Amino acid sequence: MTLILSLDFGGTKLAAATVKAGTREWLYHESRFSPANADALSDLEIMRSLIKSVLKGNKPDAIGISFGGPVDATTGLVRLSHHVPGWENVPLKQLFEEDYNVPVSIDNDANVAAIGEYRFGAGQGYDSLFYITISTGVGGGWIINGKLWRGALGMAGEIGHIVVDPRGPLCLCGKRGCVERLASGPYMAQNAREMLEKELPSAEGKARGEILRYLTGNNLDLLTGKVVSAAASYGDEIAQEVLYRGAWALGVAIGNVANLMNPQRFVLGGGVTKAGDNFWAAVRKVARETALPEVNFEIVRALLGDDAPLWGAVALGLDLLN
Amino acid sequence: MTLILSLDFGGTKLAAATVKAGTREWLYHESRFSPANADALSDLEIMRSLIKSVLKGNKPDAIGISFGGPVDATTGLVRLSHHVPGWENVPLKQLFEEDYNVPVSIDNDANVAAIGEYRFGAGQGYDSLFYITISTGVGGGWIINGKLWRGALGMAGEIGHIVVDPRGPLCLCGKRGCVERLASGPYMAQNAREMLEKELPSAEGKARGEILRYLTGNNLDLLTGKVVSAAASYGDEIAQEVLYRGAWALGVAIGNVANLMNPQRFVLGGGVTKAGDNFWAAVRKVARETALPEVNFEIVRALLGDDAPLWGAVALGLDLLN
Repeated sequence: MTLILSLDFGGTKLAAATVKAGTREWLYHESRFSPANADALSDLEIMRSLIKSVLKGNKPDAIGISFGGPVDATTGLVRLSHHVPGWENVPLKQLFEEDYNVPVSIDNDANVAAIGEYRFGAGQGYDSLFYITISTGVGGGWIINGKLWRGALGMAGEIGHIVVDPRGPLCLCGKRGCVERLASGPYMAQNAREMLEKELPSAEGKARGEILRYLTGNNLDLLTGKVVSAAASYGDEIAQEVLYRGAWALGVAIGNVANLMNPQRFVLGGGVTKAGDNFWAAVRKVARETALPEVNFEIVRALLGDDAPLWGAVALGLDLLN
Repeated sequence: MTLILSLDFGGTKLAAATVKAGTREWLYHESRFSPANADALSDLEIMRSLIKSVLKGNKPDAIGISFGGPVDATTGLVRLSHHVPGWENVPLKQLFEEDYNVPVSIDNDANVAAIGEYRFGAGQGYDSLFYITISTGVGGGWIINGKLWRGALGMAGEIGHIVVDPRGPLCLCGKRGCVERLASGPYMAQNAREMLEKELPSAEGKARGEILRYLTGNNLDLLTGKVVSAAASYGDEIAQEVLYRGAWALGVAIGNVANLMNPQRFVLGGGVTKAGDNFWAAVRKVARETALPEVNFEIVRALLGDDAPLWGAVALGLDLLN
């Protein structure tokens, strides 16, 4: 039996799983939230205990790792984590190679999820695809000719920071109207909040955004992307406007990418994609209008959900053995 | 001696050349403008006479063809020409295979120019690059992992129709603010014309755009991209504004593409790139501001000029023999 150990260092969650090569079900699967005051060392300690509990004394033949932040896939050096301190320049690949004396492969979570969906999910059989995760941030991973395309310096896939509206709101990156600024969960919450704060009651004393206010108990600090989605589905006009603008941004970006790269499929995952049918219809419509008529593509839902990075890490592990 | 025959069916010009494999100088090189009333048959006839005059009775070992319009590179079928009628579904590859009884490879001019610059020009040694031609239209060709990336359906590289300003002017394709709408020669001429027609003299009786009017003898039908470039270099404010807007559009697109694909180099060719140092400085500045700080790239001039498609066709021919 060939045993693959698959690890996912997410921003807020750690997961480990084992799988027999050639099968598509976890042998064992364990996950734990990263504590609020986590650092790299405490995350590594938790991961080691998860590994122990999924390996059950067995030795893996290869290890695949998904890391939630920039990684040099060649050297296996973590550059940093945007969520957890202490990850700067940790040689994560080398660390596990030495601990378990087996080959280890590592990449950032967007690339790993892309390969996960390609090998085990919504991308099976599609040799050119772009995986996009729309969640706290917006990122992506490329499969071209059946292989990960990481870019010249491992930076490919940053769809979150392509500009779709140069006169749009200011993004943390310093530019205006980035996809992430309009379509990520936290920024949609911020956009809704800003609209609510400016909203004045109409002549009949009615203000838009009542459902948003109701759902947060009028405490706008509690606004999240998920609340915006929910309020939109209940008919809240401000929430619908914010969500549509996110879908529009994503649709323009996807249409532009289709013109530029002409992949077969776009596979969309992440929390924001749970926003419902109106969101999906808007993304598809705007993408179709933005792409040239002769540029064809499909936009489909990711199939592996939160396990996409773990399954991608399995693919990384399997590739080490071929 | 291995002899490659290289053909370029441009929109307005036809060219044929021969080269010995392994050398970098034309053996013979002939070109002729396509007549105003040209159709596919007359173009083919002219091309045959050019071929005769460059082959000098020799038989080529392979033929590479660049075609100025959409082509199916796999079947060698021309879809159409946007400039010359009668090219719909012409099996150009098969035609030359049967005529000369040698292997033939064909692709559209943007892809062929990309591979030309990669193998013989400004892209040598850069395994990931995007070639962009900014001329009557704006198009591009991808080299990824040292090979042409044509897209799933041969449609990759259409940077001319990615939207950079959704509130910008209407493009022929039906969208607003496409790169081509802002940066191509004919559209820059149109933009300058529209601004001139709206321009009112100031209180002192001075109107902007005097140099543009002077250069066209006040006949705005004579405005071209080249005239706009020239006027800009002489200090015409309207021309400078139009040219800057084109450079801005191109810079935003390049920065977005850098974030998305992270190629090593962008190689820029076509008439508009002769617009001078201010144009280049603006393209580079806006692209740098649009890309994330950690995404590095260079923007360089194409080296092969009008011969880029012919040299690319040589590369296509050579690849048939390996």
